[in-house]
Amino acid sequence: MSCVFCEIVAGDAPAIRVYEDDAHLAFLDIRPMVRGHTLVIPKAHSVDMTDTPAQTLAGMMAIGQRVALAARASGLHADGSNLVINDGKAAFQTVFHIHLHVAPRRRGDKLSFAKGVLLRRDPDRERHGRLLREAIEGL
Amino acid sequence: MSCVFCEIVAGDAPAIRVYEDDAHLAFLDIRPMVRGHTLVIPKAHSVDMTDTPAQTLAGMMAIGQRVALAARASGLHADGSNLVINDGKAAFQTVFHIHLHVAPRRRGDKLSFAKGVLLRRDPDRERHGRLLREAIEGL
Ligand SMILES: [Zn+2]
Ligand SMILES: [Zn+2]
Repeated sequence: MSCVFCEIVAGDAPAIRVYEDDAHLAFLDIRPMVRGHTLVIPKAHSVDMTDTPAQTLAGMMAIGQRVALAARASGLHADGSNLVINDGKAAFQTVFHIHLHVAPRRRGDKLSFAKGVLLRRDPDRERHGRLLREAIEGL
Repeated sequence: MSCVFCEIVAGDAPAIRVYEDDAHLAFLDIRPMVRGHTLVIPKAHSVDMTDTPAQTLAGMMAIGQRVALAARASGLHADGSNLVINDGKAAFQTVFHIHLHVAPRRRGDKLSFAKGVLLRRDPDRERHGRLLREAIEGL
């Protein structure tokens, strides 16, 4: 069984990376709801809340917090973020390697957020990845 | 400045509690999107990602995982959960004491979930709180 997120970790599938350490990887969602929509994953494969150690969730959340703070500090000019884990297919999980969504939000962006849920594309991904990457380095 | 979640922690405002330890409290959302919609908070007041210690987020997520597993094991018969932190007003945060939403989901419940986002009420809250409380104790 292949896993696209394990392939990204291994460097066998492309991704715009925004953060990496020994145990975690953060990269832009290929179908973003908003600019800078980032996924934080553990490098070790697990599926959902039933098989992911609490310690791994803690590590994912610590990175998610850094991404959320970076989105505020960056040229994305975020005012906040939605941090979301969809735990199980019934909860809209579509890739079965656990991941934390960080969706940077701006005041008054409700409409673009609602549109993004439907459209999920970003013509300027490379730049938004770079903005986040630089802001995380600068935190 | 009063904070309704600090009032719940102090016992000065009512809540249907599902879990409590020295540092955390979990209780049913008064405006649930789905049955068993639970909020996990730290007892110590903080606002959002800008002022909440990573260790506190880790603790909240560990409780959130237990609630998600309890929702599966309980009479709620959940197949999964959405775990969500709305970080900032721009991200739909409405109570400015940080909280983790755990929204138990069932296969095929998309319509009731979508309705719940609009309606956010549950006529059978007491029972759903009890189901979760018992399941957490039994984990
Ligand atoms: Zn994987
Ligand atoms: Zn408070």
